[in-house]
Amino acid sequence: MTQKDFVFGLQSVVETLKSDQTIDRILVQQELSTSTKMQEVNRLAKDKRIFISKVPLAKLNRVTMKNHQGVIAFISAVPFIPLSHVVPGIFEQGLNPLFVILDRITDVRNFGAICRTAECAGVQAVILPQRGAAQINSDALKTSSGALNHIPVCKEEDLRQTLDYLRQSGLQIVACTEKAAQSLYEIDMTGPTAILMGSEEDGISPNLLEKADFRAKIPLLGKIASLNVSVAAGVVMYEALRQRIGEA
Amino acid sequence: MTQKDFVFGLQSVVETLKSDQTIDRILVQQELSTSTKMQEVNRLAKDKRIFISKVPLAKLNRVTMKNHQGVIAFISAVPFIPLSHVVPGIFEQGLNPLFVILDRITDVRNFGAICRTAECAGVQAVILPQRGAAQINSDALKTSSGALNHIPVCKEEDLRQTLDYLRQSGLQIVACTEKAAQSLYEIDMTGPTAILMGSEEDGISPNLLEKADFRAKIPLLGKIASLNVSVAAGVVMYEALRQRIGEA
Repeated sequence: MTQKDFVFGLQSVVETLKSDQTIDRILVQQELSTSTKMQEVNRLAKDKRIFISKVPLAKLNRVTMKNHQGVIAFISAVPFIPLSHVVPGIFEQGLNPLFVILDRITDVRNFGAICRTAECAGVQAVILPQRGAAQINSDALKTSSGALNHIPVCKEEDLRQTLDYLRQSGLQIVACTEKAAQSLYEIDMTGPTAILMGSEEDGISPNLLEKADFRAKIPLLGKIASLNVSVAAGVVMYEALRQRIGEA
Repeated sequence: MTQKDFVFGLQSVVETLKSDQTIDRILVQQELSTSTKMQEVNRLAKDKRIFISKVPLAKLNRVTMKNHQGVIAFISAVPFIPLSHVVPGIFEQGLNPLFVILDRITDVRNFGAICRTAECAGVQAVILPQRGAAQINSDALKTSSGALNHIPVCKEEDLRQTLDYLRQSGLQIVACTEKAAQSLYEIDMTGPTAILMGSEEDGISPNLLEKADFRAKIPLLGKIASLNVSVAAGVVMYEALRQRIGEA
């Protein structure tokens, strides 16, 4: 991989912030004294709405043992597109919206596989939270089989607000969860739909789940309690596609 | 992982062959002079129908640099069950057969994920060839989320014969391939069905594909030419499940 996944050091991070490269997020050492350069990092990051995590020194050292000066910026393999720029275009093109929202899916390979499936299933955007998303690095791009270059990735500050915005825009939110009375196959996804998938560890956050219009359960006939999240996402996206083909 | 994935050295391999442990396959160094012990390895492996690969010394050395004496046996994380023992039981229990056949799917993580989905979707057996299958090691078991302990794995000598046997037993063979005129959603999988999936590199072998009753194409609406094989397998297995739920 020639892709460089992060830059470190105050000057390098400032230069990257001033460039066209998309920064995923920035790690800053806790209790770092606020130098003029650090103030510049803060200001530029704020302008570009890039999330800064204050972390212990040890976490920075796990990324690189080189002289990072307490600041590391992760470069995204693809640019982010604001959801508010994507939605009007979808309607203008006369498309029937189908989005996927990923709540705290942090495994890079699962994220990449989901983007690959999304691109294949005709999903028009993948929506992530600014905090708690997988790093969109060269491994994600590779696992996505290049799909990340073809499908818009929207990184949103507050997924609760995002769900409100999508509902106001006329989409129904279908949450894929085992805590559901209805089977996936009972949900009508032929209309504008956003599919909400949660983390493999503990599913969808309760404060997002309560905003869903429908909860859909994938039938599990065996002893294992859940599917791999990228497989589950594939089953739901393709069920939406199947219903839409049938309607066409 | 406490699971030991291989044993090496003539005496250890002989002892493992005499034990209840399931050996996946045995690597033997090319041009190894045939000692009495090696003859015993050959005889025991033949009795247990375990495949011996003759390989260059370098391949053995890549597995372990310890004193392997030209012979390494890979231990399977689960026992294999002959398909001919599984099929009659399925019919006797009044079940509607649903099997998955994996042609040269060698990636351990994809294999594990497929077994996990198969167990969840009510598939009764996963069928592999003796040559060109993923190693069923502790990583496969982990990726399967333990499903490998619950679903029979059948390792068959010749998949062409296996397909004949399944058809004679009343199953239809549905091959998942892009080289298909029919969409997956046009295929009726409510009757006894074996789903055939091929390798990510080059799909299903032509000599197996020609034995399929149906070729099913998963619709691809984007620019990416294929799904990840574990996602594709999930989409097909769950389409079979959906159709069967509808019929019940």
